[in-house]
Amino acid sequence: MRTSIATVCLSGGLTEKLHACAAAGFDGVEIMEADLLAAFESPEEIQALCRRLGLSIDMYQPLRDIEGVSTGLFEENLRRAEAKFELMERLGTRLVLLCSNVATATVADETVAAAQLGALADLAAEHGIRIAYEALAWGRYVSDYRDAWRLVQLADRPNLGLCLDSFHILSRGHDPSEIESIDAEKLFFLQLADAPALDLDVLSWSRHHRLFPGEGAFDLVGFLGHVLRAGYDGPLSLEVFNDTFRQTDVRRTAQHAQRSLRWLADRAAAAGGWSTGRLAPAQPPLGVDFVEIAGQDLAAVDEMLDRLGFAFAGRHRSKPVRLWTAGDASIILNEQDRGLEPRIAALGLLVADAEAAAEHARGIGAPPVFRRISAGDQELPAVFAPDGTEVYWADGPASASWRAEFGGGLASADGLLGIVDHVNLTSPWQDFDETVLFGAGVLGLEAEASSEVPGPLGLVRSVVMRSADGAVRLAMNLAPPAAPALPRHLAIRVDDAVAVASAARQRGMEFLPVPDNYYDDLAARFALDPAFGARLRGLGLLFDRDDAGAFIHGYTPTIGGVFLEIVQRIDDYRGYGATDAPIRLAAQRVAALQLTSW
Amino acid sequence: MRTSIATVCLSGGLTEKLHACAAAGFDGVEIMEADLLAAFESPEEIQALCRRLGLSIDMYQPLRDIEGVSTGLFEENLRRAEAKFELMERLGTRLVLLCSNVATATVADETVAAAQLGALADLAAEHGIRIAYEALAWGRYVSDYRDAWRLVQLADRPNLGLCLDSFHILSRGHDPSEIESIDAEKLFFLQLADAPALDLDVLSWSRHHRLFPGEGAFDLVGFLGHVLRAGYDGPLSLEVFNDTFRQTDVRRTAQHAQRSLRWLADRAAAAGGWSTGRLAPAQPPLGVDFVEIAGQDLAAVDEMLDRLGFAFAGRHRSKPVRLWTAGDASIILNEQDRGLEPRIAALGLLVADAEAAAEHARGIGAPPVFRRISAGDQELPAVFAPDGTEVYWADGPASASWRAEFGGGLASADGLLGIVDHVNLTSPWQDFDETVLFGAGVLGLEAEASSEVPGPLGLVRSVVMRSADGAVRLAMNLAPPAAPALPRHLAIRVDDAVAVASAARQRGMEFLPVPDNYYDDLAARFALDPAFGARLRGLGLLFDRDDAGAFIHGYTPTIGGVFLEIVQRIDDYRGYGATDAPIRLAAQRVAALQLTSW
Repeated sequence: MRTSIATVCLSGGLTEKLHACAAAGFDGVEIMEADLLAAFESPEEIQALCRRLGLSIDMYQPLRDIEGVSTGLFEENLRRAEAKFELMERLGTRLVLLCSNVATATVADETVAAAQLGALADLAAEHGIRIAYEALAWGRYVSDYRDAWRLVQLADRPNLGLCLDSFHILSRGHDPSEIESIDAEKLFFLQLADAPALDLDVLSWSRHHRLFPGEGAFDLVGFLGHVLRAGYDGPLSLEVFNDTFRQTDVRRTAQHAQRSLRWLADRAAAAGGWSTGRLAPAQPPLGVDFVEIAGQDLAAVDEMLDRLGFAFAGRHRSKPVRLWTAGDASIILNEQDRGLEPRIAALGLLVADAEAAAEHARGIGAPPVFRRISAGDQELPAVFAPDGTEVYWADGPASASWRAEFGGGLASADGLLGIVDHVNLTSPWQDFDETVLFGAGVLGLEAEASSEVPGPLGLVRSVVMRSADGAVRLAMNLAPPAAPALPRHLAIRVDDAVAVASAARQRGMEFLPVPDNYYDDLAARFALDPAFGARLRGLGLLFDRDDAGAFIHGYTPTIGGVFLEIVQRIDDYRGYGATDAPIRLAAQRVAALQLTSW
Repeated sequence: MRTSIATVCLSGGLTEKLHACAAAGFDGVEIMEADLLAAFESPEEIQALCRRLGLSIDMYQPLRDIEGVSTGLFEENLRRAEAKFELMERLGTRLVLLCSNVATATVADETVAAAQLGALADLAAEHGIRIAYEALAWGRYVSDYRDAWRLVQLADRPNLGLCLDSFHILSRGHDPSEIESIDAEKLFFLQLADAPALDLDVLSWSRHHRLFPGEGAFDLVGFLGHVLRAGYDGPLSLEVFNDTFRQTDVRRTAQHAQRSLRWLADRAAAAGGWSTGRLAPAQPPLGVDFVEIAGQDLAAVDEMLDRLGFAFAGRHRSKPVRLWTAGDASIILNEQDRGLEPRIAALGLLVADAEAAAEHARGIGAPPVFRRISAGDQELPAVFAPDGTEVYWADGPASASWRAEFGGGLASADGLLGIVDHVNLTSPWQDFDETVLFGAGVLGLEAEASSEVPGPLGLVRSVVMRSADGAVRLAMNLAPPAAPALPRHLAIRVDDAVAVASAARQRGMEFLPVPDNYYDDLAARFALDPAFGARLRGLGLLFDRDDAGAFIHGYTPTIGGVFLEIVQRIDDYRGYGATDAPIRLAAQRVAALQLTSW
């Protein structure tokens, strides 16, 4: 399927936007009039630039508030429109968008509106131009695509058809299945946008909070299915008004946009049983193969892992890389990075077919990772997550053969530790939605409900993306814009957190200090057995309970940009101790600032 | 009146918040339980710290979802509450906030809820504690303060009263005048918050978008009047959940908060005819006395002013400061700043009584400006605006005597120029609301409707604050978080913009280039006389029209962080050419990047 994007989705000037769209692989663009007016290049230059870049100008958006008006005003509107049709000839585009009148319509009579649409279409026909009429969700008299379709039928001109926009239809809760009854040759254009579930007036929601497909709450796969079953064969075009994308790097946003369309086309094709637009099948992860911590000097991490009860499982035969294991959890320490603080740098996932997973990811457009491989080393395919984390795939469910590259391990784990419960990644505020799309589209995970945690330097937004069986869970955190970067962490699930913490303390481990006030409240909230409460307090462990079970957990100090968490899930507790997260954020800040008393 | 603030309004840890509240002049605080739980200091330490700082702990907020529940759950709730009452004794506070049940209430019967409130009050009485019951706007059964008042009357306990919160009452549109019929001794506490007009679900609106009084759309002056007429004499306390204030510097936010309360108390006292809490009378500005541009090297600004037609009116007798004038507009160029780029640094306003204006500003808490004065120099009182601009007052309406300090002017203006139409200030996103409060509270201006301008690097939010007669207008712009700082500008109103621009061009002036595409669109939009359109295009002037008149304007290039605008208002045009602002922002970016073709 051809892909297109409205220039209003992107930051910068028009020529920058066009270059970025072409570089990201779009076939065409919709040009918003405001972008052309602010450009110093003439329409002829823009046309020529698009031709050189291989971009079609699929649609131009200069008209508004045309139909449903008094005769005098309509004459004036026709004069304005004719000037725009002449401009479109200079631009070399033949399709114009007409949104339903939101401001100046005063005539509620459909026959008047249809007659005016017809007259406009006749004028457009003199210039060889087609008109795509779209019902805006807040249109004065026309706000439903079914009303727009009726007007188009009433006007009955060959060059007058519909533009469908998923936002305007789904935001109002209009049933999209009736799209299938529209004549295919009257579906002139399709605009796609997702959006978060917000109880906000539809105009503000539309103008500021749209998202790329796969990042919001709309069922775009189902929506696109209806449009394709109706016989639409034009481009899939994105029209996403979003305050963030207006600010972020134009090239990156264009790539991000292109990935969302490829994901959507693949999902819709899979749902509809079509072969067009299909990628290699996604590979939902079966488990975490390894987590890699990288940095110039990881001696403090070695010490921490040893005290926690991990076993040193050996050194890599040719690189400054070490392996620690415990139960099914493997942590790789990589000291190839020069001058960087310790951080979670890579993640290995086990899938049924690693090559297919990589091919799927490349098909969507995730950037591949290059890593130098020595002779005989296992080569795992990998891509970069939006936050720069490298994600590797290995054939599973058993752990992969790269372990043979490590030798000389001396100890064995104490048997108390378990498996990777979840890995936490963080992203700057402008990359959050992209990270969610990556989790869903590239990694095959599903988003749980998002939450907000009040930290001492602002709200931290969080969403957990998980595989269907919970074997892989990635917690994505969004730091407040003005706050320093958050550390990332890795949570190890154990059978007995108290035993693990006790043993670790005996080996000299110090956990992140937790305020006494927290334990006083814990006792009040949960009517805990006092001896158990005292045990938690003595070990610095935290506790939560929900309807299905309970949760015991504790945090290590932060080393550079990484810390570990020990978690125990009792019965069917499904959360992550979110009520304890503010305590952790505050304690980490105290530790980072070395605040004692003020 | 005593002032108080909820610790949840501020960023940082609890002890930092307490220090900041004391430094800003608050008399007391409401402590949010989450802040205490995350603190390493014991309740006794917090009590002692507050005593040392001179802060009372006016209220503690640990209870939720207590009343309207099954008997079994209520017993559990009482147990939880008792632990909190014990904690409050350690903290040394005797008033607890109880919000209406939002999550666990299942019993709609008012007599049950009232009986449970009564039982809770009896338990509290054993600890000497009073309960302030508050209707949350999204409470399950109690969401209106009048319902809460009925329950309090039904329960009829001496230590059970009401907490009123302006947000919960005004956001739901409940009539606040009925507050006056509540018994004064039952008004235990008052929480104040403003909020912007948003059509958003009330929970999100409340949790993320509250503002300090004077910054939003609520009539807090009227609201407070009702509460004071009811006989309330407790503290005025702020409870403002706002994503931005959670992130910004705690000391600055506390000062900002304190200023908003002083402003509100003054306004409410003035409206009610009370003398308590009154400041010196505000002095609405009569005109702009001068605008000062400061920087290390202002030669390019001298040249620009000369070409525009300003007259060089002399040098200061003792400082590297020059004066340019034209009509009633005076621009001071100040080269005392070392190492800084040219920028608008100060603004002089003419008022009836400059000393009263300064006293009013100091009463609100605006930080005073210190400036070295030589013998015989005029000393003007001044304060800093939140963005660092210095604002001076001089007795008007005629211009002030400081002009005598300048001598040696050589030229006279060409008579084409006029007066200062508006001065544009910019603020980083976190200071925007504070800037609006400064304009209203300190300068005596009123906010017009705010707007959003799409620029190439994101949306620019803008609000114009003006004096009643429009003689002083400050346009405040908010740059997108990720974008570079915006330049500030100064607009000079003239009678004939075409003549001014023509004369300036003859003197070698180059205006900011405007794209041809803009002029093509102008012709289509307004059916302009072609000769007039060509004249605008030749001079680089822009044009707008509304129902009341028209607007001709043009921009100089940006020098450092400042540019000038020439504006002509035809008939009763009241705007600022907002539709042209995207064109300007794009052209300025092209000029700044020296982009030619890409």
